[in-house]
Amino acid sequence: MIVLVDMDGPLADFEGTFLKEWKRMFPNEPHIPLRHRRKFYFRDDYPQRLLSKVESVYLDQKFYPKIPPIVEGLEAIREMVVLGVNIFICTTPLSVYKHCVFEKYAWVERHLGYDFTKRLVLIRDKTLVHGDFLIDDRPEITGVLKPIWEHIIYDCPYNRQIISKRRIMRWRNWREILGV
Amino acid sequence: MIVLVDMDGPLADFEGTFLKEWKRMFPNEPHIPLRHRRKFYFRDDYPQRLLSKVESVYLDQKFYPKIPPIVEGLEAIREMVVLGVNIFICTTPLSVYKHCVFEKYAWVERHLGYDFTKRLVLIRDKTLVHGDFLIDDRPEITGVLKPIWEHIIYDCPYNRQIISKRRIMRWRNWREILGV
Repeated sequence: MIVLVDMDGPLADFEGTFLKEWKRMFPNEPHIPLRHRRKFYFRDDYPQRLLSKVESVYLDQKFYPKIPPIVEGLEAIREMVVLGVNIFICTTPLSVYKHCVFEKYAWVERHLGYDFTKRLVLIRDKTLVHGDFLIDDRPEITGVLKPIWEHIIYDCPYNRQIISKRRIMRWRNWREILGV
Repeated sequence: MIVLVDMDGPLADFEGTFLKEWKRMFPNEPHIPLRHRRKFYFRDDYPQRLLSKVESVYLDQKFYPKIPPIVEGLEAIREMVVLGVNIFICTTPLSVYKHCVFEKYAWVERHLGYDFTKRLVLIRDKTLVHGDFLIDDRPEITGVLKPIWEHIIYDCPYNRQIISKRRIMRWRNWREILGV
């Protein structure tokens, strides 16, 4: 079995870190609590006038190292390795890739150990990758191919409108969903 | 049609740059001319006692930016884009990933433009990626899956022992090989 897992969302608390840093850096601007996030991209939820401030938060060189892991997610993928599942972390770099590509590798090494960096896949079009499942918080995933994998939604407030796909709730039900 | 192209070798002159830098940095050590290279990895061709010196050449932060493109390769993949081929640059980071992951993106942006960075795939196991062809100078490519793509050898002195696969000769015959 091959399981692809997205990084920001299912494994790394990108959203929570953004909100914390946003409130710290721009205390006088409005913020959107996590439970009220409705769109996948911050730029579609935050007012247009705040766009450059929003980007300045997560494009900062120091942003990625501050992101804490989703502990249950790391436990789940470590367990999958033990179970003999071929697990790969499949992540799309930010459009401004300057800091994030190295930082993604460093993050995986820091939280999962060096050997896990060999399971990292940096790719924009995830439909190209083979797998039985892709666990991802993005509501819709498209690309040049019709995917082979089943897209399992990693439950977040901004993807609850998707009712046609199975979903993993904070990793509580991953064994049941993957059937292992 | 989906064509995957390896980066170091077919598109970026990693070998030539290594030799030039090796001779510059260690003028008193022996060197192996390109035409006498027999093994895919330098470490298997150069004497064991030189291993740390060999690695110090290509792990240097300034090494990757020095690599010139294989001009015919860049022309070929630009032409493929025009022909409607889905082309992706499929590359494995060095084990010591510190500098090379960012530098690979920067190299593609510098020589092929920003939009081409979206076609970059950083992956260790290329058997996971869908494609009709993979153009790669590595003699054998294995991983968790039996690949879907046909491996087209990018001709280099160290892969001439492979006679069972079709081969691209410095990009002169790519149209004939891919049938476009």
